[in-house]
Amino acid sequence: LEKSRIEDVAAALTHLTPADQRRLFRQVDDEEAAAQLLVEIGEFDLKNLVQDLSVERLVALLDHLPIDDETDVIAVLPDEMREQVLKRIQRDDRAHVEELLTYPEDSAGRIMSPVAFKMHEDASCREAIEALQEAEDLETVFYLYLQNDGEQLVGVTSLRSLLTHAPNTRLGDLMTTDVIAVTPEVDQEQVARIVSRYDMLAVPVVDEHRRMVGIVTVDDVIDVIHEEAAEDMLLMAGLREEGESERGVFGAARQRILWLFVTLFGGIAMAEVIGVFAVSMKNMPVLAGFIPVMMGMGGNVGIQAATIAVRNIATGQSQGTSAAVLLFREARVGFLMGLVFAVVLGAYGWATVDAYLGAAIAVSIVTTVAAAAAFGLLVPVSLNRMGVDPAVATGPFVTTGIDVVAIVIYFTTCQAILGL
Amino acid sequence: LEKSRIEDVAAALTHLTPADQRRLFRQVDDEEAAAQLLVEIGEFDLKNLVQDLSVERLVALLDHLPIDDETDVIAVLPDEMREQVLKRIQRDDRAHVEELLTYPEDSAGRIMSPVAFKMHEDASCREAIEALQEAEDLETVFYLYLQNDGEQLVGVTSLRSLLTHAPNTRLGDLMTTDVIAVTPEVDQEQVARIVSRYDMLAVPVVDEHRRMVGIVTVDDVIDVIHEEAAEDMLLMAGLREEGESERGVFGAARQRILWLFVTLFGGIAMAEVIGVFAVSMKNMPVLAGFIPVMMGMGGNVGIQAATIAVRNIATGQSQGTSAAVLLFREARVGFLMGLVFAVVLGAYGWATVDAYLGAAIAVSIVTTVAAAAAFGLLVPVSLNRMGVDPAVATGPFVTTGIDVVAIVIYFTTCQAILGL
Repeated sequence: LEKSRIEDVAAALTHLTPADQRRLFRQVDDEEAAAQLLVEIGEFDLKNLVQDLSVERLVALLDHLPIDDETDVIAVLPDEMREQVLKRIQRDDRAHVEELLTYPEDSAGRIMSPVAFKMHEDASCREAIEALQEAEDLETVFYLYLQNDGEQLVGVTSLRSLLTHAPNTRLGDLMTTDVIAVTPEVDQEQVARIVSRYDMLAVPVVDEHRRMVGIVTVDDVIDVIHEEAAEDMLLMAGLREEGESERGVFGAARQRILWLFVTLFGGIAMAEVIGVFAVSMKNMPVLAGFIPVMMGMGGNVGIQAATIAVRNIATGQSQGTSAAVLLFREARVGFLMGLVFAVVLGAYGWATVDAYLGAAIAVSIVTTVAAAAAFGLLVPVSLNRMGVDPAVATGPFVTTGIDVVAIVIYFTTCQAILGL
Repeated sequence: LEKSRIEDVAAALTHLTPADQRRLFRQVDDEEAAAQLLVEIGEFDLKNLVQDLSVERLVALLDHLPIDDETDVIAVLPDEMREQVLKRIQRDDRAHVEELLTYPEDSAGRIMSPVAFKMHEDASCREAIEALQEAEDLETVFYLYLQNDGEQLVGVTSLRSLLTHAPNTRLGDLMTTDVIAVTPEVDQEQVARIVSRYDMLAVPVVDEHRRMVGIVTVDDVIDVIHEEAAEDMLLMAGLREEGESERGVFGAARQRILWLFVTLFGGIAMAEVIGVFAVSMKNMPVLAGFIPVMMGMGGNVGIQAATIAVRNIATGQSQGTSAAVLLFREARVGFLMGLVFAVVLGAYGWATVDAYLGAAIAVSIVTTVAAAAAFGLLVPVSLNRMGVDPAVATGPFVTTGIDVVAIVIYFTTCQAILGL
């Protein structure tokens, strides 16, 4: 245990039963390692581990952590424990933690570290180096931020520049003034986008007067990117959150079932729609055999179109283009693909029944696929304009919607061509 | 144009037509900005921009770039142009670029920068600072790497430690010896996992003798994480690669159509399967109405299970658990959800037709949902053990497979209970 890195211990821990996790945690003698472990494990496992801990022990462990990590741990404690812990941690730590907790979850303020390496712009390189030597509570130093008399952020420079300039150089003379900063309310996804685009190691967080309140560092940004990617993927499958494997069978079922009701009631609606066409089906029972391929093709084409739309929204690629242009493009892509499918499926229908059925099926599949592509695009784009995360769109909503459209197109076309 | 950041210009560029892109690019006077722009835009746009450029101009632009970015640009040039460019770039740059190009795409060797800040472990802090002052070709310096007489990587330290120790301190005395490193052949996804887990700003790349050949920096890792997340999402929808919006309608259709043939032929198989049950359907046409809900529920439950499995594989969460245990767990989750659906759907069947049909539908939906959950887990887990990216599983394969299973379960159950 002592030879392993804390990150590896944390990863191994998630595979153990809750009781074994607590047993293993008790065997971690080194307080700093134990504190680090609380940070590295997920929220669910953390809640399990703290059950065993006295408030005194927890406060002692938290004292080893930087403020942002300390806040993350405190944020997920049970209400009562959180209040007791907050009462007992050091005075200025408490002020910082309480400030961070006031920011909304998933905001820059919540993931920032309130401590950064700041100097006055008129200070010299020598003074900066001296300050650095004395500042023991700083984590990894990414940049040196420079302030004016009003404590406003006016520039930034690198540690390297301190080494490569004469000791008496004024910091203001070697700083970059064009500093990208965010406010604490900015969503963490937006912070991640900024850090990714401009290849930054840390982004300063400033208040409305451009006074620095903290920095968001690149390691936290990486966590955000992973979190958001996982969230998008789960949302697209109609799941709300991560951490499934940590739940019991009942918990898992409850978490997954919500969106499935959309499919369930959609399915009942489908039974009703098909009921309307009962006469057609009675006259020609073979029609039922093509219900699955119509639904399946429509659904998958719609999911593709929606996935591409979600990606383009995420990367900002579709920003410049109007919804009508995008929609027309999707319909054409769908129409082209539909033509290919129509040849295959029409030939199959002709070979197994007759040319009329072949024609009816061919027309149905082209129309369905073109409509599905357009519908798959429309849902995420509309959700996005309404301010809803477009990733929810490709889940049960798109497929269920397209299923109904596909069936109506199919039977209407068959009635028209086959005269049923 | 001159006031904008290059990253923003690059982002705006992707929205323009190819001709407008080239026109705008010609207006970028600053060579360094133009070179940077080549790095920031995507592969597709890059190929468009270089069409206009003479080899001489391109070589002049590339001279402004660090080796790893230079290699990225050269790697996507048309074959003939690449050879001409390689002939004309500076001698030692060429050696570096050619070396990087020997590594497989998506490997650490391909994304690394071959230049890093290295010193002998016996050198002093003063010597390191002097070296730093003279080294102008270094990009952002993340860490100082220390080597022994055999040029093997033996330790690492931070720039900050140079500032906070006496100038005559031996570097070997302030280094961390426990250095995580990768070899050039390691997959970029694995590199990203290491950097994410251990919160590193750069990871050294070493050869088989532990001599440093380069570093992979955190900004490149962020690009990898974005790329892999996008790839997974697209794979799950049965799409092979990014960059759809850059293609024409024909290109887009061609790219999307491949996996849809799985659905198409699956759909024809379904028509055949349903044909087998034609007698049941003739006796009771209302049965056809429930085909969509069986397929839809099976498909969505299967996609959920597969998505969760893909996530768990990606995060390493299911490593410790046997496939049989996971499978049994999924089947139970599916069974529980199926019970809830059975009540709703069975009641609907009873109300609209009779108790027998209600019972048949209830039994079918429970069995289908449990089977779909198990099947949705099984496909990605099996693919992963076969060494295939499990993300392909949730696309058309899972849904088409489950559709067939759902229909067979449904009609077999109806025949057994309703005696059709």
